[in-house]
Amino acid sequence: MNLYAAALVFFAGIGIASATPAGPIAIAIHGGAGTIDRAEMSPELEGAYRDRLSAATQAGYNVLEQGGRSVDAVRAAINILEDSSLFNAGKGAVFNAAGQNELDASVMDGATLNAGAVAAIHHIRNPIDLAIEVMEHSRHVMMIGEGAEVFARERGIEWIDPSYFRTERRWQQLLKAQSQQAAAPPPGSSFYSTVGAVALDQSGNLAAGTSTGGMTNKRYGRVGDSPIIGAGTYASNSSCAVSGTGHGEYFIRYVVAYEICSRVAGGASVREAGDGVINGVLRDAGADGGAVIMAPDGSIYMPHNTTGMYRASINTRGELFVGIYGEDSG
Amino acid sequence: MNLYAAALVFFAGIGIASATPAGPIAIAIHGGAGTIDRAEMSPELEGAYRDRLSAATQAGYNVLEQGGRSVDAVRAAINILEDSSLFNAGKGAVFNAAGQNELDASVMDGATLNAGAVAAIHHIRNPIDLAIEVMEHSRHVMMIGEGAEVFARERGIEWIDPSYFRTERRWQQLLKAQSQQAAAPPPGSSFYSTVGAVALDQSGNLAAGTSTGGMTNKRYGRVGDSPIIGAGTYASNSSCAVSGTGHGEYFIRYVVAYEICSRVAGGASVREAGDGVINGVLRDAGADGGAVIMAPDGSIYMPHNTTGMYRASINTRGELFVGIYGEDSG
Repeated sequence: MNLYAAALVFFAGIGIASATPAGPIAIAIHGGAGTIDRAEMSPELEGAYRDRLSAATQAGYNVLEQGGRSVDAVRAAINILEDSSLFNAGKGAVFNAAGQNELDASVMDGATLNAGAVAAIHHIRNPIDLAIEVMEHSRHVMMIGEGAEVFARERGIEWIDPSYFRTERRWQQLLKAQSQQAAAPPPGSSFYSTVGAVALDQSGNLAAGTSTGGMTNKRYGRVGDSPIIGAGTYASNSSCAVSGTGHGEYFIRYVVAYEICSRVAGGASVREAGDGVINGVLRDAGADGGAVIMAPDGSIYMPHNTTGMYRASINTRGELFVGIYGEDSG
Repeated sequence: MNLYAAALVFFAGIGIASATPAGPIAIAIHGGAGTIDRAEMSPELEGAYRDRLSAATQAGYNVLEQGGRSVDAVRAAINILEDSSLFNAGKGAVFNAAGQNELDASVMDGATLNAGAVAAIHHIRNPIDLAIEVMEHSRHVMMIGEGAEVFARERGIEWIDPSYFRTERRWQQLLKAQSQQAAAPPPGSSFYSTVGAVALDQSGNLAAGTSTGGMTNKRYGRVGDSPIIGAGTYASNSSCAVSGTGHGEYFIRYVVAYEICSRVAGGASVREAGDGVINGVLRDAGADGGAVIMAPDGSIYMPHNTTGMYRASINTRGELFVGIYGEDSG
C-alpha cells in the first residue's frame, strides 16, 4: 500500500467514525398503576410525586446523554424511585403478611438478552443494583433469598438493616389490610406501585428494569411478576423493552412483557402491542395493570387499564412528560 | 308441553349426554436432556430408566383413562420420576454449591391459565404437589423458600428431613464438579435432568408440569427455568402445553415454553414450533435443551438439541413410546 492509499484508508476511517451519529436516546419510567383519586391527592403530595418522577427520568436521561449504557440509565432512574418513600420499592416498600419488607427486582439487556433477577431480598438498599450484579457477575439469571444476599456480600454490596425500608404509612396499610381480613384488596382500591424503567442508549441498545416490594399483606415467600423475566420485565433490541406494573399473578400467567415484545416483533407498533395486551388481554382477564414500552427507535407508549399510573418520560426529541391520571396525555 | 314432547326432550337430553364422546387423551413426559453416551450406559441402567419412564407415563395415562384431570395426570407421572433416584427431581436431586438439595417445580392448567410454582424447597417430598397446592389453594402463583414451606405446613403437606433427597451418586457429582473448579460444566458433558410432563384429558384440557433439583454445584439461591411460568412450563388450551429441560438461564432469556406456544397459536404445528425454538433459537444461542410439547388435539412432539433425552409418551391411539437416544423415533 502506498502512502496515498494509506492516507485514503486513514481518512476514510476517520470519516466513518465521525459520520456514525450518536443514535437517538429516550427513557420512560413508571411508579405503579392503580386507582389514583384526585380527591385524595393533596397538591403537596402530587407535587412530591411529580418531583421524584421528573428527577428519576432526568437522572436516567443524563446517563444516556453522556453516552452511558441503557442498563445504567435504567439503574439511575430506578435508584431514585427506590430511595423515595413514595413508591413501593426499596425504602417505603409495602409489608408482607409476616410484617417484613421483602423486595424483588429484575433487569434485562436488550443487546445481549442477558438478564438478572432477585427475589425475597431483605438487606440490600437498591434491589435493582443486585439484579444487575447477578446479570453481570454470575452465571445465573435469577437468585433468591439468603442465597442472593450471600452473593451480594461476596460482591461487596452494602448490607443494611431491614428497618431501613420501614415507613409508618406502609405499616398502617398492612394493619388496615389485615383488619379487613380480605383475601384480596377490595375492587377499585387496588394499587400496584412497583417501579420500573426502559431506556434506549446512543448505541441503539434497549434495556428494561423493574423493582418492587410486592403486594401489601402478601404471603411470606410470595413472588410476583417483577423479578420474572418475560412477565414483569423484558428487553430485546429486535422487538422492544417493557417494564410492567399490576396484579403480578396475571402478568405471570399471560407472560405480559414478553407477549408485548412478541407483538412488536410481529409488526405491531408499541401502541398496538401495549393496548392489545394491557387494555385487551389483561382487562378481559379482570386484571389491573400498566406498562412502559419502548421500541428500538425510541418511541414510547405507557398504557394502563387503571384510573392512573405514575409515569414519566423524555422522548427522542428531549421532551419531558410527567403524568399521573389517565387523562394526562402520554 | 305434552307427554310426547316431554319424552322427546328427555331422550334428546340423554342422546346429547351419551353422544358427547370422551375426547382423546394423551401424555408425554421427559426425564432430562443432555449428552447420553451409549458406551457409558449399562443394559441394567438403561433398563431401569426405561422402566421408570414407562411406569410414569402409564400412571399419568391411567388418571386420564379414568376421566381424571390433566393436572392430576401430570402430577401422577411426575411423582414417579420425583420418587426415583434416577432423575434430578425429588429424591436423587443434584446438590447445590452449599451441599444442599434445593428443589423447584411448577404447574399450569391450560383450561384456566391458573398456575403454581415453588422454588428453593428443602422439606417437601414431591415439589410438584406443592406447586399444585399453590395453584389451587392460594391467591398467588409463585412462592419460594421458607415462606412456601410455611404454606405447605398450613396445608398439611408432609414435612420431611432434607436427608431424604440425598444420594451418594449426586454427592460424588458435586465433589467432582467442585474439584474441577469449573465455572460451568465442560462442553459436551452437560446434563439437565429436570423432569416434566404434559397431558390432555377427556374434557379437552391441557396441563403441563416440571420439577427439578436444578444444576449440580449451582449457587445457593439460584433459580432456573423450571419454576418460571413461560420459561420452563406453559399450558393453554388455545395453543399447547410445554415442559422444558435444559440450560435454564437460556430458557428464561428466550421464554422458551411460552414462545413455543405462541408459535402454535400463530398456526405452527408442534413440530414446527418445537424445532424452531429448540433446534433453532436455543441451538443458535449455544444452549442445550429439549421439551415435550402437546397440542390441543393430543399430538405430541419431543424435540431436543442434545444427543439424548429421556422421554416417553402414550399418544391418542394408546401407543406407548419410550426413548433415550436421539435416533429413537418420537
